[in-house]
Amino acid sequence: MEHSNPNLTIADLGEQQLLQRLYQFCSPSKVGDDAAVLTPRPGHHIVVTTDMLVDGIHFSDRTTSPADVGWRAAAANLSDIAAMGAMPLGLTISLGLPETLSVHWLDQLYQGIADCLNTYGTAIIGGDLSRSAVVTVSMTALGEVLPSAQILRTTAQPGDAIVVTGVHGAARAGLELLLNPDWGQTLSTAEQLELKQAHQHPQPRLDVIQCLRQIAPEVRVSGMDSSDGLADAVLQICRASGVGAEIQQTHIPIPKSLQATQALTSEQILEWALYGGEDFELVLCLPLPSAQALIATMGAGSAIIGHITLERNVNVLDRQGIEHPLNMQSGYQHFG
Amino acid sequence: MEHSNPNLTIADLGEQQLLQRLYQFCSPSKVGDDAAVLTPRPGHHIVVTTDMLVDGIHFSDRTTSPADVGWRAAAANLSDIAAMGAMPLGLTISLGLPETLSVHWLDQLYQGIADCLNTYGTAIIGGDLSRSAVVTVSMTALGEVLPSAQILRTTAQPGDAIVVTGVHGAARAGLELLLNPDWGQTLSTAEQLELKQAHQHPQPRLDVIQCLRQIAPEVRVSGMDSSDGLADAVLQICRASGVGAEIQQTHIPIPKSLQATQALTSEQILEWALYGGEDFELVLCLPLPSAQALIATMGAGSAIIGHITLERNVNVLDRQGIEHPLNMQSGYQHFG
Repeated sequence: MEHSNPNLTIADLGEQQLLQRLYQFCSPSKVGDDAAVLTPRPGHHIVVTTDMLVDGIHFSDRTTSPADVGWRAAAANLSDIAAMGAMPLGLTISLGLPETLSVHWLDQLYQGIADCLNTYGTAIIGGDLSRSAVVTVSMTALGEVLPSAQILRTTAQPGDAIVVTGVHGAARAGLELLLNPDWGQTLSTAEQLELKQAHQHPQPRLDVIQCLRQIAPEVRVSGMDSSDGLADAVLQICRASGVGAEIQQTHIPIPKSLQATQALTSEQILEWALYGGEDFELVLCLPLPSAQALIATMGAGSAIIGHITLERNVNVLDRQGIEHPLNMQSGYQHFG
Repeated sequence: MEHSNPNLTIADLGEQQLLQRLYQFCSPSKVGDDAAVLTPRPGHHIVVTTDMLVDGIHFSDRTTSPADVGWRAAAANLSDIAAMGAMPLGLTISLGLPETLSVHWLDQLYQGIADCLNTYGTAIIGGDLSRSAVVTVSMTALGEVLPSAQILRTTAQPGDAIVVTGVHGAARAGLELLLNPDWGQTLSTAEQLELKQAHQHPQPRLDVIQCLRQIAPEVRVSGMDSSDGLADAVLQICRASGVGAEIQQTHIPIPKSLQATQALTSEQILEWALYGGEDFELVLCLPLPSAQALIATMGAGSAIIGHITLERNVNVLDRQGIEHPLNMQSGYQHFG
């Protein structure tokens, strides 16, 4: 890898050499046959999630290096595994690549994917390569979970506390800094870096799953991740469970740097926290005592932001105690 | 579905309606959460295989209807599951779609996928939708297998009989008929249909796996499928196992219609049988008595075509007993 010619293209290498090169990033015992083989632990169920990223739609060289495209894509899939209460077993990658693509770009993409997976104790277990006019990255992540530890969207109950595992709005602010460097000049260099990292290098919350297993192994937990926004997560859980929610605006954890900045009104901060998306935190609904124990263990950034209600409305209460219904309109839609 | 307007596009529907529409083709208990959940039987390992198909590279409206694109893609993934000795547990689909694509095309694609999966007792368990300038279909199939029943490429041994589970060259002939309808006019309509079906509607050989479990549950079987050609399969197995092979040209099963036709020389028939690809049969290496029992059970089309040798060369013996080394040059390469 270290001697790679920056002008070398996919077409220069050919499929066999390309595969040999990519194998170096993979789990050696898994690749090379018609399919990868995984051995789940006894009694565990398998969870499977899949994602497709397309150049120009989901990533852009303007805001994201190939290594960060790889990291973010892997992190998004691991976040879905965490959102099921599971721990990862491995990930497959299918790539559609133009023949003119530089091998250096591809190396960096794989390095980003491998770095993320290694950080969370898992690996690339297989894949497929195809020609395509548009760079396309399709990933499928697999995980394992004991049936009693599954986190579903459908099982939230009135009275449950609603926990978020970290701050919201950071990834959206980081994107703003990348697209529009003049914005946020009142922020320190360290603050800017932290927000950009939130966008480019999100951390899937598999640590929360391990924590939950220790402090509340038998407790019913409903939830999902906040990849499409905090508002979307609360609405999806409520819809799937046939319940409502009441959120305290002041309890939503916001990055400290945004609280202090003059660059945003409080309305804009709330907008980014609710609808910004891509923070990859978990939104969990569980009985209050377990929620309090979880917050105590996770510490800074995590919070109880409200509770599940029998009535099916989803409202945010502002500082004055006035109710504002949450809506999906501001949420991210892939089509239409 | 039955009332679909042929002019309706993806953009007309929007993501939520599109998802609701596609859910109708899916296993209802699996979709709707962050990930699908599968329950493998105790003691079974999980096998995972993935494929990406790109419009203009892997399929074309000229030779394949959207329903057949779906069937073939699903069949190719199930063939990889069979090639591991496994039975399928489910399949995820990620789609990249232009907004101008007709919903009718997408319905037909999903119908083809669902028809194939239902035929083999499995289902769509999840997926992802994305915008893309190029229609891109990425599938990941999962299966389960007892460790003792795994079929790997690495375990062929000198003396093993080499079994093919059906005729070769049929899919290549079917493609020729579709691309070049003037060819093969000496064939009957029924013969033409059969060859076209071999290309458009391949059958993954999961039946062979069930058969193997009954007649030889404890026997070591090495092998893979012949999706990239019979020659490629034999060469890959030999390379992975560190062995060679001797193939009897006259033992390779060829479609009856091709044996009789004036449209091809015997050299062309052999070329298509060895290098044509996409017949989706299995190429299996196992001790002779088990191979004979397997052939006896499977019947017409299956055959022992040769044996594994200690010497690492891979040769085809012609009618006169003259050796011809097999080469990869004629095999299908995705890049380069």
